[in-house]
Amino acid sequence: MKRVLVIGAAGFIGRAVCTELQGRHDVVGLDITPRPADLCGLDWVSGSITDQPLVASTASGCDAAIFLASTSLPGSSQADLAGEVSSHVVGSLQVAETCAANGVGQFVFASSGGTVYGTDAPEEGLPETAPTRPRNGYGVSKLALEHYLRLMRETGRMRTLSLRISNPYGEGQRALRGQGLIAAAMQHALSGRRLPIWGDGTVERDFLHVSDVALAFAAALSHDGPSTEINIGSGQAVSINDILAAVRRVTGQPLDVDYVQGRSIDVRRSVLNVACAERELGWRAQIALDRGLERTARWWQQGTAQHAGIGQFAREGRAEIAKSG
Amino acid sequence: MKRVLVIGAAGFIGRAVCTELQGRHDVVGLDITPRPADLCGLDWVSGSITDQPLVASTASGCDAAIFLASTSLPGSSQADLAGEVSSHVVGSLQVAETCAANGVGQFVFASSGGTVYGTDAPEEGLPETAPTRPRNGYGVSKLALEHYLRLMRETGRMRTLSLRISNPYGEGQRALRGQGLIAAAMQHALSGRRLPIWGDGTVERDFLHVSDVALAFAAALSHDGPSTEINIGSGQAVSINDILAAVRRVTGQPLDVDYVQGRSIDVRRSVLNVACAERELGWRAQIALDRGLERTARWWQQGTAQHAGIGQFAREGRAEIAKSG
Repeated sequence: MKRVLVIGAAGFIGRAVCTELQGRHDVVGLDITPRPADLCGLDWVSGSITDQPLVASTASGCDAAIFLASTSLPGSSQADLAGEVSSHVVGSLQVAETCAANGVGQFVFASSGGTVYGTDAPEEGLPETAPTRPRNGYGVSKLALEHYLRLMRETGRMRTLSLRISNPYGEGQRALRGQGLIAAAMQHALSGRRLPIWGDGTVERDFLHVSDVALAFAAALSHDGPSTEINIGSGQAVSINDILAAVRRVTGQPLDVDYVQGRSIDVRRSVLNVACAERELGWRAQIALDRGLERTARWWQQGTAQHAGIGQFAREGRAEIAKSG
Repeated sequence: MKRVLVIGAAGFIGRAVCTELQGRHDVVGLDITPRPADLCGLDWVSGSITDQPLVASTASGCDAAIFLASTSLPGSSQADLAGEVSSHVVGSLQVAETCAANGVGQFVFASSGGTVYGTDAPEEGLPETAPTRPRNGYGVSKLALEHYLRLMRETGRMRTLSLRISNPYGEGQRALRGQGLIAAAMQHALSGRRLPIWGDGTVERDFLHVSDVALAFAAALSHDGPSTEINIGSGQAVSINDILAAVRRVTGQPLDVDYVQGRSIDVRRSVLNVACAERELGWRAQIALDRGLERTARWWQQGTAQHAGIGQFAREGRAEIAKSG
């Protein structure tokens, strides 16, 4: 049992990670928000990751840290790259360096398998050694952070590992901020609104259920392999149109879409090769897409889920639907 | 004829670039220092690149900018990566974005062919498509800047180009800050001091005379090829021991060295493939190593060169030698 600091613990992935680690490890959650009701068993610190004294005192005594906080989004503006670096890269690195300086031995970073490559995947999926040429500022920042964290490991400051996560989806993901096609599709299907889709829906992505993401972070805590970046994905390429059809099936709703002119920024086929994760983490995705979508649809349909935290999210989702529908 | 802003104009490469562009273009130099005497024909603005209003007013009306300023060095500490990003990446990007916002159409960035790859070169040299896995914070920052600048081009904000320069050397390079093996070797040879060498001297590097670097920047101003990063090197791998032997020959001094335990951080063989520069810039190195070393030795030996600016540098060099010898 380790004492594990989860940074960004109240987010979509953070909550799943905390839930997964609870019982197996001594978990302390750090987030700007108060502790969610469904994570009441956890130590919790509410505060900003830019508050370095707070990060230092919280990290002190922890064996490992999992970094899931982000001040940036894939779709964020390209108009202020210096600001993107200031908030995203500098802020994240400060947290990592504060952890290292306070005796944290291991740092697991949530990187982005969907953006760091920026290149079309071959049949067998993108291996970790594929060229990295991100197509947006979010991807460049994730990639830069991977490199700086690798240097921290290579210079013996802290054992670091970057998990290049594909497109996560599942219960708890909100459709608020342009993230998550599946959450947006669920929300639009259930509210009867038309969903705008960039391009013709034939681009392929690698969707991974959030509970599999959580298992990958749990496995990463025992990692002692040579890799500094590891792909975490389903390894399966699925087209946007296939996702839409599956969402119609699991929700029982028609879900009309408007295809709008494709952004040239989009990669045609993004799917990860996950052989390294199997080899070094003993991890592979457990939840098939159909089953994951069914679970997700049920969560969206419940709206008033019994679990307070998830219920809260679901209610927010419904409120938005009501507002914008 | 274009109006060209040279940012970091008083530095080793900056002075050579300004000298090369003078007469061909309308040049304005920006640097923290006053205008060097040998660049008296240039428009000059003294100030910090962190002074954004100053950068904006200086950039306004310029067709192109050449960015040679750096607040970081290859050998700088790995202990404060967040600080490195704050000063180096954010500072440089702010200048680029200010240039774009003030109508500068083209931005040529001095990247580092010696650090962005971080991997051993094959026989034919590293092509621009080689994996990029820098071994120090300086290299990661240069690489990150390349990516952000590429995005600025891809999103139509400004035409950007990164020149991945190999190891520059030549007249005007000082041996002050751990940069430049050849400058250090010249200084030590002429002062009779022993030169410490990391490793056994068999590692190979790609040395390029500064006047060839200047020609590459001049050629870049007319670039309209597809590449966003272009290697600028001699394409020739030369071992450290061969350099030392050549420095002994051109200076006529013994130059004793102390081999100290190699840093694991060092790449064994770093040499650039320059086919792209030939193809897209019509550029290739003109000055053979022997001739370049002779010119450099003469500059070090003169000490009181007639050209005021260069003489000033040479005198500084001699003063250091006298002080530390």
